[in-house]
Amino acid sequence: MNKNYTFSAGPSMIPAAVLNEAAKGLCNYNNSGFSVMEISHRSPDFEKILSDAESDLRVLLGIPDNYKILFLQGGATTQFSAVPLNLLSGSKKADYVVTGLFSKKAYTEAQKYGDIRLVASSADKNFTYIPKLSRDDFRPDADYVHICFNNTIYGTKWGYIPDTGDIPLVADMSSCILSEPIDVSKFGLIYAGAQKNMGPSGVTLVIVRDDLIGHMREDAPTIFDYKLMADNNSMYNTPPCWSIYMAGLVYKWVISMGGVSAMSELNHKKAKLMYDYLDSQDYYINNVQPDARSIMNVTFVTGDPEIDKAFVKEASEAGFKSLKGHRSVGGMRASIYNAMPYEAVEGLVEFMDAFSKKHPKKEGDR
Amino acid sequence: MNKNYTFSAGPSMIPAAVLNEAAKGLCNYNNSGFSVMEISHRSPDFEKILSDAESDLRVLLGIPDNYKILFLQGGATTQFSAVPLNLLSGSKKADYVVTGLFSKKAYTEAQKYGDIRLVASSADKNFTYIPKLSRDDFRPDADYVHICFNNTIYGTKWGYIPDTGDIPLVADMSSCILSEPIDVSKFGLIYAGAQKNMGPSGVTLVIVRDDLIGHMREDAPTIFDYKLMADNNSMYNTPPCWSIYMAGLVYKWVISMGGVSAMSELNHKKAKLMYDYLDSQDYYINNVQPDARSIMNVTFVTGDPEIDKAFVKEASEAGFKSLKGHRSVGGMRASIYNAMPYEAVEGLVEFMDAFSKKHPKKEGDR
Repeated sequence: MNKNYTFSAGPSMIPAAVLNEAAKGLCNYNNSGFSVMEISHRSPDFEKILSDAESDLRVLLGIPDNYKILFLQGGATTQFSAVPLNLLSGSKKADYVVTGLFSKKAYTEAQKYGDIRLVASSADKNFTYIPKLSRDDFRPDADYVHICFNNTIYGTKWGYIPDTGDIPLVADMSSCILSEPIDVSKFGLIYAGAQKNMGPSGVTLVIVRDDLIGHMREDAPTIFDYKLMADNNSMYNTPPCWSIYMAGLVYKWVISMGGVSAMSELNHKKAKLMYDYLDSQDYYINNVQPDARSIMNVTFVTGDPEIDKAFVKEASEAGFKSLKGHRSVGGMRASIYNAMPYEAVEGLVEFMDAFSKKHPKKEGDR
Repeated sequence: MNKNYTFSAGPSMIPAAVLNEAAKGLCNYNNSGFSVMEISHRSPDFEKILSDAESDLRVLLGIPDNYKILFLQGGATTQFSAVPLNLLSGSKKADYVVTGLFSKKAYTEAQKYGDIRLVASSADKNFTYIPKLSRDDFRPDADYVHICFNNTIYGTKWGYIPDTGDIPLVADMSSCILSEPIDVSKFGLIYAGAQKNMGPSGVTLVIVRDDLIGHMREDAPTIFDYKLMADNNSMYNTPPCWSIYMAGLVYKWVISMGGVSAMSELNHKKAKLMYDYLDSQDYYINNVQPDARSIMNVTFVTGDPEIDKAFVKEASEAGFKSLKGHRSVGGMRASIYNAMPYEAVEGLVEFMDAFSKKHPKKEGDR
C-alpha cells in the first residue's frame, strides 16, 4: 500500500479500490476493447454508466423521486450563476448567508441577477462560526435561501439545517456531500463539485426539486437550463464522460463500504481523533467554535508562521502531503474526506505530536 | 493490438500510446505515489501538466504570442453563449454562417445577446456544401463573424478561410483541430471541444487574441470571462484536471508523430482512400460537394434505409464500430480522426466492398 497521503482540499484522495477499477476501464471497459474515454456518450455502455451513477446516488442519499439528478460541467463556481439564473423566477429576491470565501463569491455573483440580501455573515469572527438563524430571518417572498454547508477553507460546517419554511433552501455541498446522511427533502437544490468526495474534478452534481426547474431567464445561457439538462438526461451536449464514470465508481465504493451512514461513522471517528488531540494540548490551535467544526476539513495553526511553514515541509517529507492552509488564511488544513483512511489520520496525529516536541515554541509564543 | 475500431463522432479513438501513458498517470503519476486525479491543481506537478499542454499546443499550431490559450469546461455548446457574451462589445452586431446543426445552434444562441445576422446558409441543399463568401458579404461594423469549420454531422469542411477584413473571425473547430495546419493569425478566436482530436470529453480549448478579451458583458456569468480565465491561467476555479492531462498527452503524441503537418498528410491519405472508393462505385453515395468534403467525417448512404441498418450492424460485428450516421440525418458516418490508423480505414473500405456484393440492391434502388 502507498504510504503517502494527500490532505489536499481537492482534488484529493481517491479510494485505491476505485483507482484499481478505473485502471481496467481506462484500458478495456467491460471487455469492449475500448477505453471508457473512447466510447460514445450515446452508446449503451455509457448510458449504463450514467444510469447506474444516478440510481446509485439516489439510493445512497435517499433522493426522493420528485428530485432530478444532473451531472454538469463548470464546477460549483458555475452554479453561483446558474442557481440565480434558474431560480430567481418569482420575486427575484434571494437571501444569502456568507460563511466563507465561496459563499461570498456566490452572494456576489447573484447580485447580477436580482435583489440579493445578505442575511448573515460570520466574517466578524473570521468565519469561525455558523450563524444561528430561524425562519424569521428570511424574507418570506424570497425565491430561495443560499448557504454553503461546509466551508473548506475555514473548516466549518452547518451543525443544523436552517428552517426556511416554504422558501427553497439551496446548499453548496461541494466539500461534504456523501460524508453524512442528509435529508434531501429539506432542500430545494443541492450542488457539489466532484473533486472532494466524488472522484476527480470535471463534473458537478446538481440535485434539484422538480418544481424549481423550467423557469430560467430567457437571456441566460442555454447550457445553464436545468430543465433542458433534465429532459436530456444530462446529455444535451457531450458530458464529461470520464469524470461521471469515476463518480459512479466512487458511488459503488461507498455502497460497498456500507453506505453513507457507515462513511459518516468513519468520518466522525477520524474527525474526533483530530479534534480530541487538538483540544488536549496547546501547541496547535483550532479556532473554530465546537458546534461548527467540519468533519471534512480540520484547520489549525501553531501561532508562528515560521513553524507552520516547517510543519508543512516536514509533514510532506513524512508522507503527509498538501497540509498547507488555503492561501487566504495560512496555517494548516487537513482535508480528511471519505477516501482518507483512519490510519492516515492516526499517523498524522502522531506526526503532529512528535513535531511539537521537536520544535518547541519560543517563550511568549503561546 | 486491438482489432476493434470506433468510428464514433466523439468521444472517439485515443491513440494506444496515449492510453498506455495514461495508465501510468492514473496509478502513480511521475512517481508521486498519487494518481493525476488525486493531486491538487495548485501543485507543481499539475502546474507542469498545464504549462506543458499550453506550450506544446502553441508549438503544434504555431499560435502567436498575442493569443491566449484557455482550457475551459462546458463543451463547445457553452462557447455558443460565451462568445457573444465576451465579443459583442462594440456594435453588438455579429454575422453567422450556418453550415450545419451546431453552427445553427450557435447562431440561435447568439440572438439572445445582440443583432445577429444570418450571412449565408447551406440548408437549401441539406448542408452538402460550403457557401462562397467574400469580404463584401459581412457587415463592416460587425463585432465578429462566426463559422463552424468542420461539420461533423454532414461531413463538410470549409475549403478556405473567409476573408473578413478587420472583423474578427470566430471558428468552432471541435471536429478538425490539429487535423491540418491552420494560420491562427487569420482568426480572432478558435474554440474546440476535446473529444475528437484532443482526448476525452470534459475540456474545451479556447484560443483567443488578446484584444478580444476583457470586454465581457457585466451581467454575464463570471465563469465565462475569458479575461478572468486568462489572468488565472485557466484556474479561476478547479479545472478539469484529468481531461487537461489527457489533452496534454495527445499533444505530445502528435509531436512524436511529426506534428500537425504529418497528421495532415496521414489524414488526407485516409480521406482519399475513402473518397476514391466512394467515387469509384455507385452502391454507396456521398452527397457532399467535392470542394467541401471533410477529411475527418466521411458520410455515405446506400439509398435504402434497411440496407443502411444492416450495414451498421454487420460492420459492428466485423469490428468497425459506431458507423451509424447522426440521428438527424441517418445513413453512415465514418469519423476518421487523428487517432484512427490508416489500416483501419483500409479495413473499412474492404468491408464496404464485400458488403455491397453480399447485399445487392433491388432493381430500381440505384
